[in-house]
Amino acid sequence: MEIGFIGLGQMGLPMAGNLLKAGHTLTVYNRTSSRAEPLVAGGARLASTPGEACRGDAVITMLADDRALQDVMPDLAAKLGPATIHVSMSTISVAMSRRLAELHAQSNQGYIAAPVFGRPEAAVAQRLFVVAAGPRALVHRCQPLFDAVGQKTFVVSEDAPAANVVKLCGNFMIASIVETLGEAVALARKSGVDAGAYLDVITGTLFNAPVFKTYGAIIATEKYEPAGFKAALGLKDARLVLEAADDAAVPMPVANLIHDRLLTLVAQGRQDLDWCALARLSAEQAGLRNSG
Amino acid sequence: MEIGFIGLGQMGLPMAGNLLKAGHTLTVYNRTSSRAEPLVAGGARLASTPGEACRGDAVITMLADDRALQDVMPDLAAKLGPATIHVSMSTISVAMSRRLAELHAQSNQGYIAAPVFGRPEAAVAQRLFVVAAGPRALVHRCQPLFDAVGQKTFVVSEDAPAANVVKLCGNFMIASIVETLGEAVALARKSGVDAGAYLDVITGTLFNAPVFKTYGAIIATEKYEPAGFKAALGLKDARLVLEAADDAAVPMPVANLIHDRLLTLVAQGRQDLDWCALARLSAEQAGLRNSG
Amino acid sequence: MEIGFIGLGQMGLPMAGNLLKAGHTLTVYNRTSSRAEPLVAGGARLASTPGEACRGDAVITMLADDRALQDVMPDLAAKLGPATIHVSMSTISVAMSRRLAELHAQSNQGYIAAPVFGRPEAAVAQRLFVVAAGPRALVHRCQPLFDAVGQKTFVVSEDAPAANVVKLCGNFMIASIVETLGEAVALARKSGVDAGAYLDVITGTLFNAPVFKTYGAIIATEKYEPAGFKAALGLKDARLVLEAADDAAVPMPVANLIHDRLLTLVAQGRQDLDWCALARLSAEQAGLRNSG
Amino acid sequence: MEIGFIGLGQMGLPMAGNLLKAGHTLTVYNRTSSRAEPLVAGGARLASTPGEACRGDAVITMLADDRALQDVMPDLAAKLGPATIHVSMSTISVAMSRRLAELHAQSNQGYIAAPVFGRPEAAVAQRLFVVAAGPRALVHRCQPLFDAVGQKTFVVSEDAPAANVVKLCGNFMIASIVETLGEAVALARKSGVDAGAYLDVITGTLFNAPVFKTYGAIIATEKYEPAGFKAALGLKDARLVLEAADDAAVPMPVANLIHDRLLTLVAQGRQDLDWCALARLSAEQAGLRNSG
Repeated sequence: MEIGFIGLGQMGLPMAGNLLKAGHTLTVYNRTSSRAEPLVAGGARLASTPGEACRGDAVITMLADDRALQDVMPDLAAKLGPATIHVSMSTISVAMSRRLAELHAQSNQGYIAAPVFGRPEAAVAQRLFVVAAGPRALVHRCQPLFDAVGQKTFVVSEDAPAANVVKLCGNFMIASIVETLGEAVALARKSGVDAGAYLDVITGTLFNAPVFKTYGAIIATEKYEPAGFKAALGLKDARLVLEAADDAAVPMPVANLIHDRLLTLVAQGRQDLDWCALARLSAEQAGLRNSG
Repeated sequence: MEIGFIGLGQMGLPMAGNLLKAGHTLTVYNRTSSRAEPLVAGGARLASTPGEACRGDAVITMLADDRALQDVMPDLAAKLGPATIHVSMSTISVAMSRRLAELHAQSNQGYIAAPVFGRPEAAVAQRLFVVAAGPRALVHRCQPLFDAVGQKTFVVSEDAPAANVVKLCGNFMIASIVETLGEAVALARKSGVDAGAYLDVITGTLFNAPVFKTYGAIIATEKYEPAGFKAALGLKDARLVLEAADDAAVPMPVANLIHDRLLTLVAQGRQDLDWCALARLSAEQAGLRNSG
Repeated sequence: MEIGFIGLGQMGLPMAGNLLKAGHTLTVYNRTSSRAEPLVAGGARLASTPGEACRGDAVITMLADDRALQDVMPDLAAKLGPATIHVSMSTISVAMSRRLAELHAQSNQGYIAAPVFGRPEAAVAQRLFVVAAGPRALVHRCQPLFDAVGQKTFVVSEDAPAANVVKLCGNFMIASIVETLGEAVALARKSGVDAGAYLDVITGTLFNAPVFKTYGAIIATEKYEPAGFKAALGLKDARLVLEAADDAAVPMPVANLIHDRLLTLVAQGRQDLDWCALARLSAEQAGLRNSG
Repeated sequence: MEIGFIGLGQMGLPMAGNLLKAGHTLTVYNRTSSRAEPLVAGGARLASTPGEACRGDAVITMLADDRALQDVMPDLAAKLGPATIHVSMSTISVAMSRRLAELHAQSNQGYIAAPVFGRPEAAVAQRLFVVAAGPRALVHRCQPLFDAVGQKTFVVSEDAPAANVVKLCGNFMIASIVETLGEAVALARKSGVDAGAYLDVITGTLFNAPVFKTYGAIIATEKYEPAGFKAALGLKDARLVLEAADDAAVPMPVANLIHDRLLTLVAQGRQDLDWCALARLSAEQAGLRNSG
């Protein structure tokens, strides 16, 4: 397929690379164009504006946040032809996705949302999970793109923003597990159980999903620097899910708690710690000293 | 080994059966003695009082709660010889376990705590996880017993009540996951995503531990009756973890939330629903109707 | 003084009337101009656009919310002369007040914020409390206006949006008292104490401020219809304070709780009940039936 | 009337003094008997055991907590004649009051609960508020005693423990106001409003009850030492209200929050600060430095 790709960050770059490897024709755009060099070396065409990338079968946007996406939207919307589907893969707000859906619908342009689960390593390894939503036919046409970047695609709705809800809910669930681990580890430690021993039990029994092992190890060792995912970014995600919940009128008390905790880290100047430092707050409130 | 076994409930009966199968000599006691019949048929001796089961290498207690354990304690403590270890495998309060530890220490009696993770099916299948704590030598001597009932033993501390803390924290983590799933599913549903589709994504990606599948299925289908584990029992566990947290001075906001939610179910006469009905509360607060 | 007045709602109309009575020269604007009739009969000039009201010493805006204010702002900002102070008395967001402060500063226009405490009856009776903030000299010049509408003025900062923060915090405190009363009354009722008897004790002892009596009476009688202040409006205020708290990085757990509770009422179609129906939620969660 | 009085602490001593002044015949008991000297000098008889104070028309207990009351109960219950009413004025748990009610009922002894609102100064000034509950005739007979110690009596139920519920709910409401003030002040301060200025507005407008002034002043000046009422005692009260709420199946999320906050202060070794240091936690979480 002929594809435009906008946004070559930690996630976008390896995803674009995998599309290229899968044999797709690629036109790429990035604000800092030097990021595109390895792709150009591999045969991609470099666009000097977002609009130049808007042709072919689909244009994928993979940007940091609403604002970055908003910056490229005027040019993208202006240049997007009726046959080119806008595939929004960024983690953006549901409201933004809704606005895009309406905007494109008004111009008879195709739009689907397809955010992904997975960290940069998974993007490199073509092991992402894609959560897609939008008109069935459009999602179907983009399946080869999803196959090129991920290990599995979940189609959750014909309404594009629904995919963004699922993505945000997934992030919320991770955050909740981190908070829960933090509280449990604080009680375990204060009761004389080593954090590592506690986590061995937890991950060795009922909680053997990678998410417990990954975050449990950070919490057990209290290695919150350098951050895998910063508290400030966690806060951004917490805001997105609460904004979606407020719009949909769904009270989410655990999400509120996580928001407040991450806001505390940011207010105290600890925004660059890993968001697992939620567990440090639990420890501090229990009067525990850092073991590190 | 020669073992006493007190408490032949849904968990105790299959555990005692597995001890017998493993070749241990068993004396069993249950308030309702008819429960012991299959074991007696298999070679176990029936005790008519708790004290009669207190001889040999160890006496295991596997009772419903603090109160049930308290009922057998006077006789048990009076009859327990210095060579017989009291192995407390019930899910009891940390304070109760602490009192037992002190009581036995005063009488030069051996005491270890070894609560288990796993449902009755796992008990039958000899697939429990044992979390043991207490004096190292005593725990070591009981290892053959743990091997007979479980698939793996975790030794977490030389202080017996620490094992009870770990057990309660594990239960808390399950409850937190149920609550989190409930909130996320409410937002997903209200955003037009089917609960089943949402759970397919969640359990098919980052959250592939059995705990998500088991509880996710109950939530997706809203089958809260008959209960696998009743809200009223969930509330009992929430109280135990909060009591331990209060004693240890560890604030646990998520545990408080879960307590309040389960208390709501009980206050509203829904104590016999499965504790996954936490998700029904989230749905109701979001104005969703039951799909069932 | 010569004053423009924009927004003749339940609060604005009596406030404008009191300014007229105090001898100020008034030009009034309201989207629905018929609301201005009594004022015109009393000597006020009717403006047909917001801009026409923007002359003299000050133009007061007293509108329902951010959106209503935003609607008049382009015309207001275009017509406002350097000698006319924009006195923003509406309950608006801190962010909106901040944007107004910046906008006016760029145009060398004067801006102060002066939201009020008090219900329509207090506005009629000239008994409002004015919370003012902004450049000292400008606030000073507007004192006669505040004297005409209120019983007392509090000057809290030289930074205009600070007054909006104080207003929102005041509303938050009322909401918190309502929630607190609701929880306490639920426990009292379920313990066999009549809600009225409980409130007699509370308001007859430590809690003799009018706020306890006013809201306590609504809660004790469970008369949530017709609403004095609707749950939907309470939710709007809760959002405003949480938005300000998020911007300022201040975790406010009680505000979150109130938001969730009001959101629940709205999600369940009870948005038109008085916001004191927070207490009904507490009662329902305790399994109490409505006494009404 | 002829009265026994057990417990001559900060509250009990002035209360007993006022009973004496009112002309009642008094027999007093205190563990540390020297506390009784001024009363004996004024004509009171000194009892050397709790039981010796149990005769006449009524015996009042005014002790620090459940435990202190429990210590005197065996002797009190053994010596209490059928004509002597036990008037329990201590702040004790609802469960304890229930047990006393049952215990006395079994022995055909009279029991009423009559806890008080007010600090030691109010006790001295005969300005306490008495909240009484129990069999109507018994409460009626004790009215002269209440008149001697307080300014007003509220009779809330014929079931004695109901008075304890009301007392605990009152304390909960104070704690909630402190927490609410703390959150609001943190937002105000971080928005550039001086805490003192904020509190002037609050207490000068809607919130003019003494409770806002008393606690607001402590929060505004951040004078948490010496404590008027220690965080550790606040925690005790929070536990009592939550225990009552749990027994009655009433979820109280604000009470939970207060409990967690006070537990945090205690866990961090700040149990001797005034409980208004709840506001310090809000300030710290907002990244504010202590101004003191």
